[in-house]
Amino acid sequence: MLTEIAQTTRLAAQHLANLPTAAKNAAIEAIAKSLEDHAAEIVAANVTDCQAAEGEIAPALYARLKLDATKLNGAIIGVLDVAKLADPVGQMQIHREIDTGLIMQRVSCPVGVLGVIFEARPDAVIQIASLAIKSGNGVILKGGKEAIASCTALVKAIKIGLAQSQVNPDVIQLLTTRAETNELLKLDREIDLIIPRGSNEFVKYVQDNTRIPVLGHADGICHLYIDREADFDKAIAITIDSKTQYPAACNAIETLLIHRSIASKFLPIIIDRLQAHSVEVRLSELGHQILGNELHLTVDLAIATDWATEYSDLIIAIQIVPDLDAAITHINTYGSRHTDSIVTDNLTSAKVFIDQVDAANVFHNCSTRFSDGFRYGFGAEVGISTQKMPPRGPVGLEGLVTYKYQLSGNGHIAATYTGENAKPFTHRDL
Amino acid sequence: MLTEIAQTTRLAAQHLANLPTAAKNAAIEAIAKSLEDHAAEIVAANVTDCQAAEGEIAPALYARLKLDATKLNGAIIGVLDVAKLADPVGQMQIHREIDTGLIMQRVSCPVGVLGVIFEARPDAVIQIASLAIKSGNGVILKGGKEAIASCTALVKAIKIGLAQSQVNPDVIQLLTTRAETNELLKLDREIDLIIPRGSNEFVKYVQDNTRIPVLGHADGICHLYIDREADFDKAIAITIDSKTQYPAACNAIETLLIHRSIASKFLPIIIDRLQAHSVEVRLSELGHQILGNELHLTVDLAIATDWATEYSDLIIAIQIVPDLDAAITHINTYGSRHTDSIVTDNLTSAKVFIDQVDAANVFHNCSTRFSDGFRYGFGAEVGISTQKMPPRGPVGLEGLVTYKYQLSGNGHIAATYTGENAKPFTHRDL
Repeated sequence: MLTEIAQTTRLAAQHLANLPTAAKNAAIEAIAKSLEDHAAEIVAANVTDCQAAEGEIAPALYARLKLDATKLNGAIIGVLDVAKLADPVGQMQIHREIDTGLIMQRVSCPVGVLGVIFEARPDAVIQIASLAIKSGNGVILKGGKEAIASCTALVKAIKIGLAQSQVNPDVIQLLTTRAETNELLKLDREIDLIIPRGSNEFVKYVQDNTRIPVLGHADGICHLYIDREADFDKAIAITIDSKTQYPAACNAIETLLIHRSIASKFLPIIIDRLQAHSVEVRLSELGHQILGNELHLTVDLAIATDWATEYSDLIIAIQIVPDLDAAITHINTYGSRHTDSIVTDNLTSAKVFIDQVDAANVFHNCSTRFSDGFRYGFGAEVGISTQKMPPRGPVGLEGLVTYKYQLSGNGHIAATYTGENAKPFTHRDL
Repeated sequence: MLTEIAQTTRLAAQHLANLPTAAKNAAIEAIAKSLEDHAAEIVAANVTDCQAAEGEIAPALYARLKLDATKLNGAIIGVLDVAKLADPVGQMQIHREIDTGLIMQRVSCPVGVLGVIFEARPDAVIQIASLAIKSGNGVILKGGKEAIASCTALVKAIKIGLAQSQVNPDVIQLLTTRAETNELLKLDREIDLIIPRGSNEFVKYVQDNTRIPVLGHADGICHLYIDREADFDKAIAITIDSKTQYPAACNAIETLLIHRSIASKFLPIIIDRLQAHSVEVRLSELGHQILGNELHLTVDLAIATDWATEYSDLIIAIQIVPDLDAAITHINTYGSRHTDSIVTDNLTSAKVFIDQVDAANVFHNCSTRFSDGFRYGFGAEVGISTQKMPPRGPVGLEGLVTYKYQLSGNGHIAATYTGENAKPFTHRDL
């Protein structure tokens, strides 16, 4: 049953894959129009979901579930923004003559069919649908059970919009039961890429239960290292921003590392400032020793598990390190290869840090909060990947395309280029 | 134990990752020199392996196991070729001003530690070691049990060579027992990429038993489609080359598809030619009907399983299709997304085929045997990937690197760019 849905999606996606940019943009605009036309219906469906969920789910989740007219309007504007993005499909990446009349091109093309599994947030449907169509992919959506009515209304409106365009509405499908999630994760022949959106536990569950490539990240254990040669004003501003500007974000820091030689001076200042921002501080034993009696406020003792914990909250662990190498080792040991930053006025130290920290995003003298597709200028963010292989870090539309090698000849055969009288290749970039 | 080996490799690889190109090339040249110096030892070790394996393993495997002075010499020349390749590390892929004084760079960097598992072929050690060092990666090698003495002698010589260079010999490690393979596949924190080299079953086993990304492919079920508007001379030459030039290769064809309207004319010719090249033909029922009494030679009947079989031998399945769409559907149903080619003089049909066939390599009027890193001009081939996500198709050194986002500021914080008085980003490519 699900296999059939996936095959239907793939057939529709194969047609979409070869549509020109203008036709895809027209389809995206038709989606926006249909969402506007069905706004009242969508908001009403969301009210049903919210009423059923009230008191049943955590307040943060409830806030994400809610989709009122204002939020819907914002999402529709987001759809129109996707129409304005450059088309990631059809980019020629390599153009090379292999021999006279034998021409190779490497051209970007859609991945195929995406499986997107998300908790709560019904507006994710809107964003994902428009990004999928822009990149020429089919998409099978699986929303959280709290958002069934909202997602159903949204997908219905999107399909009505697509019916007015050259894109077959079958490119988008909605699943609603949890059993289908597990079934979806097994379809490694039918689904080309899984994008999970939700809690760390949820992403980890998805990663552990599928052979399909997963775009995303489970943990965001980010670090800020204050070097011996740090400017204190910058160090304070960057620490506060990296921790408090949005503590639930994956690119907020969890651990602050401080060079031993400045610790006695910097520690009391930064603890004071963090606590003024309501941040709970967990300080290592060495930190407590250095601080001695200087501290007027209570500070908890950091224990071993703190270095590997993503608080996603106004809590910070602080460790004192003897030197730059120790800071790098700490990060490479406990970090999640997401985002780590150094504050220093010494450019050599900055270079060593950037070269040796093994993370998707390595920063110097700026907040970790900048690691984000919009801030990087990608226009849209599909997710942030902490895998080593590309796409790594904040992923824009390019994460939804792959490429094909196309070779065009005139009867060319390999035998011509092998053996004793082998003809040499020209290998000339065009 | 294996975890410790992996961590030792990673530490050595971190140092290697930041060496300049000249130092890496010097290390590669030192490897070549040491292999020359230890040639007698290596060849003697291989004789031991070969004597133990004689009669115990298949002749094809035995041929791969054998490493005489000539073959070793060829492999050493290959090492020196790797020194000449462009350094894939340190390439700036994006250089962008996010705001005044806040500069983002996306720079290619090594993946980290490779796990390379291969059957028999000891010369793979030489090639992989040089490619790993050129791309700045550590490598843990696991050779087949038949090749233990050869691999041990080779790795010893390579480490002696590296000891004369700036590269820590710990970047290369050799494992020799099968138990270690399974342990290696579990180290998803320590190993960043697995490269299996061996039979389809072996690659499939690796893919099914690890969460680490795998570079490679299990099946190579490639197709050649002879269109209604095909030039017969080209069609014949390309069919013979694609099937017989090297039938054991993954990019050799297994199935020939022929357009219905030319089948009565083309079938007898191509069957005759294939049989003249000792190819066993398995023809579909429709093909037999079309052929009628025309055939002087015996042709087997193709059954359902033939369409999904990689013979890797002088056997071919032939199917008759009513039109181009049916050919594309057949390929997208039974193919392994490796390499598929169309022979036609109709450019529109060629374009439809190239656009709609879902494979890493899609060809027009040329042999499928061209899908190969050397033939594409990549200088070296790490493997051919049939995954949808990049790296896809023949993978050169670029498959052994990833990238980092580096952001450098002067105290920049995210709060400046959010809220009511948010400063806009400049997002200017430099």
